Amino acid sequence: MGRYVYDFAEGNKDQKDLLGGKGANLAEMTRLGLPVPPGFTITTEACRAYLADGREPDSLGEEIDRHLALLEQTMGRTLGDPDDPLLVSVRSGAKFSMPGMMDTVLNIGLNDRSVEGLVRQSGGNERFAWDSYRRLLSMFGETVLGVHKDAFEDEIDRLKAERGAGSDLDLTADDLRELTRAYERTIREHTGRDFPQDPREQLALAVRAVFDSWNTERATIYRRRERIPTDLGTAVNVGTMVFGNGGMDSGTGVAFTRDPATGAQGVYGDYLQNAQGEDVVAGIRNTVPLHDLETIDKACFDQLMDIMATLEHHYRDLCDIEFTIEHGKLWMLQTRVGKRTAQAAFRIAVELVDEGLIDMDEALQRVTGAQLATLMFPQFNSEHERHLLGRGMNASPGAAVGKAVFDSTTAAEWAARGEDVILVRRETNPDDLKGMVAATGILTSRGGKTSHAAVVARGMGRTCVCGAESLDVDVKARRFTTSDGTVVSEGDVISINGTTGEVWQGEVPVMASHVVRHFEGDTSTDEATVRAVARVMDHADKRRRLGVHANADTPDDAARARRFGAQGIGLCRTEHMFLGDRRELVEHFIIAETKEEHDAALDALLPLQRKDFLGIFEAMDGLPVTVRLIDPPLHEFLPDMTDLAVLVAHEDDAGQADSKHHKMLEAVKRMHEQNPMLGLRGVRLGIAMPGLFAMQTRAILEAAAERMTAGGDPRPEIMVPLVATAEEFELVRAEIEKVAAEVNEEAGFEVPYAVGTMIELPRAVLAADSIAKTAQFFSFGTNDLTQMTWGFSRDDVESSFFSAYLDKGIFPVSPFETLDRDGVGALVRYAVEKGRAVRPDLHLGVCGEHGGDPESIHFFDEVGLDYVSCSPFRVPVARLEAGRASAG
Amino acid sequence: MGRYVYDFAEGNKDQKDLLGGKGANLAEMTRLGLPVPPGFTITTEACRAYLADGREPDSLGEEIDRHLALLEQTMGRTLGDPDDPLLVSVRSGAKFSMPGMMDTVLNIGLNDRSVEGLVRQSGGNERFAWDSYRRLLSMFGETVLGVHKDAFEDEIDRLKAERGAGSDLDLTADDLRELTRAYERTIREHTGRDFPQDPREQLALAVRAVFDSWNTERATIYRRRERIPTDLGTAVNVGTMVFGNGGMDSGTGVAFTRDPATGAQGVYGDYLQNAQGEDVVAGIRNTVPLHDLETIDKACFDQLMDIMATLEHHYRDLCDIEFTIEHGKLWMLQTRVGKRTAQAAFRIAVELVDEGLIDMDEALQRVTGAQLATLMFPQFNSEHERHLLGRGMNASPGAAVGKAVFDSTTAAEWAARGEDVILVRRETNPDDLKGMVAATGILTSRGGKTSHAAVVARGMGRTCVCGAESLDVDVKARRFTTSDGTVVSEGDVISINGTTGEVWQGEVPVMASHVVRHFEGDTSTDEATVRAVARVMDHADKRRRLGVHANADTPDDAARARRFGAQGIGLCRTEHMFLGDRRELVEHFIIAETKEEHDAALDALLPLQRKDFLGIFEAMDGLPVTVRLIDPPLHEFLPDMTDLAVLVAHEDDAGQADSKHHKMLEAVKRMHEQNPMLGLRGVRLGIAMPGLFAMQTRAILEAAAERMTAGGDPRPEIMVPLVATAEEFELVRAEIEKVAAEVNEEAGFEVPYAVGTMIELPRAVLAADSIAKTAQFFSFGTNDLTQMTWGFSRDDVESSFFSAYLDKGIFPVSPFETLDRDGVGALVRYAVEKGRAVRPDLHLGVCGEHGGDPESIHFFDEVGLDYVSCSPFRVPVARLEAGRASAG
Repeated sequence: MGRYVYDFAEGNKDQKDLLGGKGANLAEMTRLGLPVPPGFTITTEACRAYLADGREPDSLGEEIDRHLALLEQTMGRTLGDPDDPLLVSVRSGAKFSMPGMMDTVLNIGLNDRSVEGLVRQSGGNERFAWDSYRRLLSMFGETVLGVHKDAFEDEIDRLKAERGAGSDLDLTADDLRELTRAYERTIREHTGRDFPQDPREQLALAVRAVFDSWNTERATIYRRRERIPTDLGTAVNVGTMVFGNGGMDSGTGVAFTRDPATGAQGVYGDYLQNAQGEDVVAGIRNTVPLHDLETIDKACFDQLMDIMATLEHHYRDLCDIEFTIEHGKLWMLQTRVGKRTAQAAFRIAVELVDEGLIDMDEALQRVTGAQLATLMFPQFNSEHERHLLGRGMNASPGAAVGKAVFDSTTAAEWAARGEDVILVRRETNPDDLKGMVAATGILTSRGGKTSHAAVVARGMGRTCVCGAESLDVDVKARRFTTSDGTVVSEGDVISINGTTGEVWQGEVPVMASHVVRHFEGDTSTDEATVRAVARVMDHADKRRRLGVHANADTPDDAARARRFGAQGIGLCRTEHMFLGDRRELVEHFIIAETKEEHDAALDALLPLQRKDFLGIFEAMDGLPVTVRLIDPPLHEFLPDMTDLAVLVAHEDDAGQADSKHHKMLEAVKRMHEQNPMLGLRGVRLGIAMPGLFAMQTRAILEAAAERMTAGGDPRPEIMVPLVATAEEFELVRAEIEKVAAEVNEEAGFEVPYAVGTMIELPRAVLAADSIAKTAQFFSFGTNDLTQMTWGFSRDDVESSFFSAYLDKGIFPVSPFETLDRDGVGALVRYAVEKGRAVRPDLHLGVCGEHGGDPESIHFFDEVGLDYVSCSPFRVPVARLEAGRASAG
Repeated sequence: MGRYVYDFAEGNKDQKDLLGGKGANLAEMTRLGLPVPPGFTITTEACRAYLADGREPDSLGEEIDRHLALLEQTMGRTLGDPDDPLLVSVRSGAKFSMPGMMDTVLNIGLNDRSVEGLVRQSGGNERFAWDSYRRLLSMFGETVLGVHKDAFEDEIDRLKAERGAGSDLDLTADDLRELTRAYERTIREHTGRDFPQDPREQLALAVRAVFDSWNTERATIYRRRERIPTDLGTAVNVGTMVFGNGGMDSGTGVAFTRDPATGAQGVYGDYLQNAQGEDVVAGIRNTVPLHDLETIDKACFDQLMDIMATLEHHYRDLCDIEFTIEHGKLWMLQTRVGKRTAQAAFRIAVELVDEGLIDMDEALQRVTGAQLATLMFPQFNSEHERHLLGRGMNASPGAAVGKAVFDSTTAAEWAARGEDVILVRRETNPDDLKGMVAATGILTSRGGKTSHAAVVARGMGRTCVCGAESLDVDVKARRFTTSDGTVVSEGDVISINGTTGEVWQGEVPVMASHVVRHFEGDTSTDEATVRAVARVMDHADKRRRLGVHANADTPDDAARARRFGAQGIGLCRTEHMFLGDRRELVEHFIIAETKEEHDAALDALLPLQRKDFLGIFEAMDGLPVTVRLIDPPLHEFLPDMTDLAVLVAHEDDAGQADSKHHKMLEAVKRMHEQNPMLGLRGVRLGIAMPGLFAMQTRAILEAAAERMTAGGDPRPEIMVPLVATAEEFELVRAEIEKVAAEVNEEAGFEVPYAVGTMIELPRAVLAADSIAKTAQFFSFGTNDLTQMTWGFSRDDVESSFFSAYLDKGIFPVSPFETLDRDGVGALVRYAVEKGRAVRPDLHLGVCGEHGGDPESIHFFDEVGLDYVSCSPFRVPVARLEAGRASAG
């Protein structure tokens, strides 16, 4: 049988598993000799035992009694003493901070008798004592007994109305006594029982309520989403109450050891005289800057400064602190490593290095790729004067400016004529997809971060603010109204900030990111953040084992990727080269009826493709360029079947039958597939449509030969998509070798190249060993691999059931965003092992979207891939995370 | 260094790996003291060494010389001797009989000088000697030197025309000498070299040609298809020539130790006097029944009868024999276990048991599920007089009768009004699918067994004859013409036999299979085959470990499955219950806009579903019925989008806009998915559309309760489709438990049930251990699992690239037909292991099409599944194969 209770003086900051985050840090401060109100922590182990057995462990009550007795002895007061009562707070504290759990009950120990003792303790401050008691009643009633807080608020509102009181502060001691009685009645009415007068019962019930709150639905879903193990349990902290609201020589505050917004050195915080923490949160009065405390109470201020310096050195990081001053005595209520903005994270990390507190490896762990990505989005110019229309959730980052439109069709039409539009809807559904694609930003008044709008916008990389509830959207009238009555009609310009959730009237100028300007080679931006980012990136590059390549299909994209640090092209998609003015040639190829027509179309495409590759090889001179042979179903290049059928129907009805359209419709119907993603595509195209892959191979190698003749250093790698078996790969590889021999013959010299395959089907994973016998490289296509492994396509499901799945925590995050380690990840690991066993120097990379996702990059490092490939814009993020993975 | 040559007297029948099939059997006969022309076998090892090094092993030539010298000594003749030459044949003989490889060169040892010796040997038969020489030249020219056989046929045709000869037999010795010269010229012109006069060189080149033929494209593809390892190599048999064409006291024949067509006891065969084996094949003259040999040459006949009895006892099976009589002396040229019809296979197996040659376990190995399936197809009544229109390939078995139609639209229209139609096309393409679905049979004049028509017809279970090349199909004129000028026009009745490939004029009465009548309980059919099948099936049932369940969705299907021996329903699909007159209710449910409409639709469906289950539980009383909750995408129940859009367009153009159609089109568009197979279906429906699974669960359990009240014994098992993670399953399982508790409460007693899941996504395989924690059973949905693992859908690809894949041997067989052991099979095995590790009594089955496929059944037995489930018609096949798997 374990021990379930620890005095604050017994633990330390490394015992978060046992004591929870809050308890461990209280113990640490106590250990450092800082002024922490004495108390004790009931361990997570006690909680786990309670949850497993449905009742408290036998010894728990006794242990609490013992520690409470010690506390009473230390404080010289007794819980419930009618003359000089000890009051305690009960706070939950799990290992990870977790919304949805019960938070705090203050002033435990008050009852109808001890409240009089509190009057005496406070030097006769009746108002303070009754205010404390009625606060206990409402907090206990709400969080322990489950009475809705409106029931208490109704009472206080009624009383204030009766008394003509403007604020709580206008209520007298008598008023508050009356309110206490009213709260007692409320509890009786709602729960059928009286508020427990026995302070021990108050404490025991509060502790149990914290335990129970571990399993609320909100907490459960939160854990599932954040991948927090469900069996950790929470600790409970019982601490002596100190009061910041006992007079002007008291007060409460929060403080940071550096500015969490900018990372600038120097303390930073707020202070509120004669108040308790909850008053600060409620915002009843305005706080003053922390530095004003120096003039209010120099001794406390100096002591606080010393303590903050101690804590920062001790934690070697920005600390976030809560404190209270009770009649001129400083008490530390909480500390923890503080949250910070992305900008601050980079600056603090490198400045801590300069201050000798941490080394660069640790600095690398203090920042994340997600933070870097935030710094790379365009931002609104904050100097600009502007009118805030409202605020919603920061669903998909970035800054977007455009004319408000209220339906998908208008969005598409206006966008087609070159206008930037923001699609404004109450909420979106799949019918709005066309408009979402056309818009530069999306704004909704309903729905959370997992609403349709949010999920789809993130998927498409569109800026999105969702759930801006203060906006009254009237789609029929084509306008929305803000809480201050401002009306925004169709065509009015608005600006939305997907990073903060703010919605602005008019055009807010958008500023390119300083960090991006730096990556682009602009040396004029020398602000602290940019310098910090540059130093961290240098270190990441030094440390990382993973190479970082980019997915780029054009010379421009390739050049940008190179500027961003890409060490090659990991995926050059050739299907994009079949669009635009080449679409007609592709149509000819697809609907060719004779071998002559078929060959003529291929012959016409060859020089165009060659030119495409020439530019890319030039941009990536000396670096590998992995070209994927054409992958998508060919009918993607043909018109939509339903649209065309309707057009033909209308033409026929009008007596204007068009034989070209009829013929095309026939072809489209012939090529139609129920599930194109599972149809004739990838290597199957190459095998079923002779000449196609050979033409592409010839274009690649002829372009390389041309570059070599011009003194260049092209490094083509040819990648076969959608391979399932070694036999398929081998057929195509043989064809590629044949073309290569011809090109070498014509060139008169040897063009170097490699041939490898995508691993994007579970079948290919299972055949990885036999494929590796002849493939020189594998590139994991984790988009398709995720689709096939889970059996859903990104196009189809993100808009249908994904939000339900995220809500219910079936996924913590979309498996298209972060690699599903347990499923798809297991397949990747298997293929790596099987492939390397056959060919130890098999070159391994990944070119799905996951190649730019921080968490996934760590996985790819762990399984030993050689490189990740991602969109040019994600290259710096990948470099950083690859560095963190190696240094971590 | 091994030994590469074995005398026929040295080997035995078990050395097929080393000596090939033919060589091992020749050795066996020699060992038994039967009259085999002496010779020797060059081993497969020699072939492998040759193929690996590109040249014959050093010692091979010397070994051949030594064995040849021995042979010359035995025969008292010398190869190439101008006076009394030894002649030999060279025949390939791999372990498995393999088309596409070089077959035979006869008469090696003849040249311009030894041909005169042969004249002398044959008692001055000049014609015989020159005929033998010219045969050597053409065989050697064609198979060793690669001259096209037309070149030789042109010469003989020219000569016959000059001489006015009707047949080869009309050519004189002089003519044949002249022909020999012409053949020599032909070889020189086509190869630039002379026919080698040196007999040793002839022999060496012929041996090498056999080795090389292992790697011809046709042989390679054949091996890939038949899964014959590519590195086995072939043996080469060199044997003394004996001649059946030296006079009327000579001849050649083939014989079977029983009737290979019916299995009846008693020898059976054909004999041709004064002929060689190739003449029998060429069909120049008619053979006589083997029994006539008794009168022609009683001594030889008696000796042959003795030998055949010896061989059948020795091989304990039907033997297939080739023999030659040379001037009254019998020579055995080959024996092997003979091929037989399905009917014969069963009869022979049980009769060999009765004769004490084998036991029932071995009898079980002598028949196959594929043979049983053949016996279960309806057959044409062979007594009927009829006119054969033509013959094609037996692409998909069965017998079909109907009116000939020549396009898909007509097929669909006529079928819709209740007529049986046979779709006749030159060849089919995906445009013809609608017609193929509507037709009872399909007939094409082009394409092989892997043509579109063949592959699709087999997939759909439609009878199909393809590649009936003698039929001239004129689709525009809507008729076809046969080689005898018969014209069949649209609407004329024809009958096609997919088992034999025959096409008949008019209606041939179709007879139900005797075997099926037996399974159906008809005791009047007592023919030998039926008795044999019944005995084998009894033994299979005794031996098998695997249970056999059926896939059935209606009480009728369930009852039939039970008669066929099913021990439960492994898959009862509920979506079929949503069709027909219920479609409207389902539409209401899908396009419901309010919760009330939604619930009302479900309420209306509940009693209908309950009634469905009631009937099935009744039919399967006392046996498990596994009901799958609804699986397919809901829009499958809505009209086709393109058809509806065209309808609406026409209505609008005609000024007859129909708001109901408009509204439906909107709903269809909203629910449209690019890849429905990868969309909102299965468990996702259950989670995204509350109430649907609960309604189905209620219907199942209420039906079970009703049966129990009536004294029945229902055994419902509820199966959740398309699960990917334990979390999904758990959400649905909890919902099912809740409904079950309600139903139990209402019934007043406990309704027994089990809850389990389909394993049909790779993701589910990888999560099998965590899913098994709460799932009571797994049923492998190998159709979907194959789709997702390979990344192609059966609907889309069987018609596009599958025939190319089968042609190139990428698949030996469609992975939808026979389970892909290396890929999908590995996943099944993994899930079995993971699932059983967590829950040792996890009940495991398979309900994909593979559950009825013989080869796949052996795999499922091997990995330890508890049962297979297949269509009712396949149940006997599965029982048989499950028995073979256990007894094997």
